Amino acid sequence: MTSSAQLPCPLCADDGGLLLHRNALLRVVRVTDTPAHPAFYRVIVSRHVAEFSQLEPADRGEVMDAVVAVERVLLRVLAPAKVNLASLGNVVPHLHWHVVARFADDAQFPAPIWAPPVRERDTAPLRARLLDVDAAVRAALVR
Amino acid sequence: MTSSAQLPCPLCADDGGLLLHRNALLRVVRVTDTPAHPAFYRVIVSRHVAEFSQLEPADRGEVMDAVVAVERVLLRVLAPAKVNLASLGNVVPHLHWHVVARFADDAQFPAPIWAPPVRERDTAPLRARLLDVDAAVRAALVR
Repeated sequence: MTSSAQLPCPLCADDGGLLLHRNALLRVVRVTDTPAHPAFYRVIVSRHVAEFSQLEPADRGEVMDAVVAVERVLLRVLAPAKVNLASLGNVVPHLHWHVVARFADDAQFPAPIWAPPVRERDTAPLRARLLDVDAAVRAALVR
Repeated sequence: MTSSAQLPCPLCADDGGLLLHRNALLRVVRVTDTPAHPAFYRVIVSRHVAEFSQLEPADRGEVMDAVVAVERVLLRVLAPAKVNLASLGNVVPHLHWHVVARFADDAQFPAPIWAPPVRERDTAPLRARLLDVDAAVRAALVR
């Protein structure tokens, strides 16, 4: 359960964000340490596996169903310009999917969130809506 | 079939890379315009749809099966440090999945490929293996 020699994997040790849902396979959290992108959620597989292709087909389906559920909530509640999905894991090779609502006035749009910022925006109006998004994510996942 | 007002969508107009496989739902191409990351493939949905969640469940499954097939080829043939998957589409909102082999000595590792480069590497040894990768991708997808 380590991400590299002798270092504990942070996604084995902690939830990795504000926990919204957990089942036997996965959990869904809201990421709270990326201030430029408040509407940033993650679907994290519980067990320590690095690559998406290492999951069994049924588990891959369940993981992507959760990703889709979060994406649909973001589209419905926030009407973003785009939703971005990514499974990278170069730093923390424990399978997790980023699900991020993107807006035309956000710090990097239309570049990926990992590109250098090109503007500042006041994220307060978006942050004020996060509890509604969280509630909708929870409701979508217990179905 | 436009990506924004009056502009034709480039992924409706062109293959978007070196075509390796095409079926009724999707095509797989090798991306040829990202010199720092030669082992960069895309799974592109044929019809013009923006978000992954807009696909029917069966089509989502088929798309991710293709993504997984490409990922497994990259892992088997190139033994990269990590495979990165992403569906962003902020610039070209026509559903496509990036499948990229990452290496510890590549231009941005462990940061995402969209971060500023931190080093240069000679990609010639990797480029010399791409025809083998392409052949393995083709073979994996016709199964």
